[in-house]
Amino acid sequence: MTRCAGFRFGATTAGIKKSGKPDVGIIVPDAPATCAAIFTQNRVKAAPVLVSQAALAKSRGRVAAVVVNSGNANACTGAQGMADARRMAALAAREVGATRNDVIVSSTGVIGQPLPMGKVEPGIGAAFASLGATFEPFADAILTTDRARKVARKTADGITVLGCTKGAGMIAPNMATTLTFVVTDAVATPAQLRKLLDRGAAETFNAITVDGDTSTNDMILLMASGASGKTPASLEATVAGVLDKLARDLMRGGEGVHHVVTVRVTGARSKDAARQVARSIANSPLAKTAIAGADPNWGRFLSAAGNAGVPLRPDRLALWLGKVQLVRDGVGIVTEAVERRAAAVMQKPEYTLTLDLGAGSGSAQYLACDLSHEYVTINADYRT
Amino acid sequence: MTRCAGFRFGATTAGIKKSGKPDVGIIVPDAPATCAAIFTQNRVKAAPVLVSQAALAKSRGRVAAVVVNSGNANACTGAQGMADARRMAALAAREVGATRNDVIVSSTGVIGQPLPMGKVEPGIGAAFASLGATFEPFADAILTTDRARKVARKTADGITVLGCTKGAGMIAPNMATTLTFVVTDAVATPAQLRKLLDRGAAETFNAITVDGDTSTNDMILLMASGASGKTPASLEATVAGVLDKLARDLMRGGEGVHHVVTVRVTGARSKDAARQVARSIANSPLAKTAIAGADPNWGRFLSAAGNAGVPLRPDRLALWLGKVQLVRDGVGIVTEAVERRAAAVMQKPEYTLTLDLGAGSGSAQYLACDLSHEYVTINADYRT
Repeated sequence: MTRCAGFRFGATTAGIKKSGKPDVGIIVPDAPATCAAIFTQNRVKAAPVLVSQAALAKSRGRVAAVVVNSGNANACTGAQGMADARRMAALAAREVGATRNDVIVSSTGVIGQPLPMGKVEPGIGAAFASLGATFEPFADAILTTDRARKVARKTADGITVLGCTKGAGMIAPNMATTLTFVVTDAVATPAQLRKLLDRGAAETFNAITVDGDTSTNDMILLMASGASGKTPASLEATVAGVLDKLARDLMRGGEGVHHVVTVRVTGARSKDAARQVARSIANSPLAKTAIAGADPNWGRFLSAAGNAGVPLRPDRLALWLGKVQLVRDGVGIVTEAVERRAAAVMQKPEYTLTLDLGAGSGSAQYLACDLSHEYVTINADYRT
Repeated sequence: MTRCAGFRFGATTAGIKKSGKPDVGIIVPDAPATCAAIFTQNRVKAAPVLVSQAALAKSRGRVAAVVVNSGNANACTGAQGMADARRMAALAAREVGATRNDVIVSSTGVIGQPLPMGKVEPGIGAAFASLGATFEPFADAILTTDRARKVARKTADGITVLGCTKGAGMIAPNMATTLTFVVTDAVATPAQLRKLLDRGAAETFNAITVDGDTSTNDMILLMASGASGKTPASLEATVAGVLDKLARDLMRGGEGVHHVVTVRVTGARSKDAARQVARSIANSPLAKTAIAGADPNWGRFLSAAGNAGVPLRPDRLALWLGKVQLVRDGVGIVTEAVERRAAAVMQKPEYTLTLDLGAGSGSAQYLACDLSHEYVTINADYRT
């Protein structure tokens, strides 16, 4: 049972999901919490994303309640969808005696179908009736086809950071929406949270890729109650640690994922260049099928690096799988023994691929996974 | 048997491929031909690409011979690879009494292994000994795991355009290299050919995507002998027609491809914006698995459009599969009957997906295919 001072959580089964699992969750700070959020960059944004973005701008980073439903994404639903998202916010606002703009609303599930408001409305009431200090019911209510709850909690220097996440690109349904909610009892202004979230997400949620697609509904929310009365210097690392754990859980938990690979690019001219190269490798279908086949086909990784749109000197590249070096000065140094050792590394569920560009001191990492048969099965057969 | 006045072709089995199939091919114009080329944009370029780019710049678009080997890509092979590519060009140059810079050299096959020059050198000699007017032996010699020869020929207004291609991203081996060679007996300067090639490739070879990856070795070559003495106004359309046929053959012929979809984007603010959106849909793994499953999951196509990085108004989007409209004003209009009709369209081996952005008059198209189990099998199991 996990808790975070200054927050209560609630959940209920409103019947939005056919499975009969919990599908409405709420987070309520004892007093309005400070908040920062990252929303999907997709130009086709679901109604709750548009409504929450506007609300957060108006409230200047203060939140009195968060209300989430799973089972229906309220995306591509037109004017009715906007009205429904606002209605969800208004109902939650009334429960806590706040205004609609003090509420964050979030949805995940099937796309293009109107929200069943006849179920959502009483569900919100029931979720408020269930409020308690325990985080898990909320963490369960945001899941869709996830195989298990994904919660992370870290404490350091007198504060707690607690978070949960759902979804993964490998899991086709719901447009692969990723929702992440993190709360802390630290004291932090919205501007401070903004910085913590941007830095923490850079090498975690903004550096994971399953299929390169961004959902219509993606959202990461970081909220601080201030209940601990403290702002330790370690807060940034603690938030980053929770985000890292959640991002890795997301990758590991995806159906069809057998290998989670940390793609580490070093020796770049800049951090940005390193990120672009790491991303290009992590997104390359040929690299990802090589990962699936545990095949140390190093040419694919070099070729994917070359596709990043970043200037690079092929004759300076060096590549390692785990600690096994396969490429030096852009040329393969693969004996049969090296190939065998590299293949053994690639059999592991988690390992690191390191590419050094030999051009500078910029470095960055991305999390990648395999492109497997299950991915195709799940995504091709979804809905049918 | 296909021919093109002013060109002779040759091929031989040099033993580079284990399969024992032809693996060295040459094209020799009766007199130096004019030429334009498109080379891979990958920053990791194979030695023959670097050598040919430099040669073409020095010869100012004149070519006395083309020499191609399959079975080995001569990529990521360092200084030895550069020396080997130059040696191939020098051998061909000697045969035709030209200099090394009058020769285009091209390779496709396994990556990271030195060219077996002991086989390549006599192979080049044997290919020259086999010179004749028939195109097919050359078209066969450039193939790797392609299931069939891919040749296109069109004649109009007294000229002939003849081309062949190999490879597809679906076909994992050889880094999915695409090599395309087109010859014509029309009269055209290198600058005219440049324009013909750029325009012709824009909606054909530069608008096909199997997995978004660009190989280290990709090359498209267009050469004119001038033997017909003519430069008809229809030349551009004829060249474009040959490129279109070859590009479609490439998609259709890929292992694991069951559906070739023309993704047509209309109503964009510019042609560039339309291209970006079409490309984003064609490259989206979630869209491609929906194509594989013949699932009219229109939300995925809208979401992929939203990921293109192009500003768009979701409430103006309209989507059709074939002639079946699924989305109007950004909202799904899918009844059971519509869904059934759309699914029937998606069962076809070839169909068109049309997305109108409702924002202008820019339009463009991309060719997409499904992401299927075979893709994963072929790419994960290659080399093992």
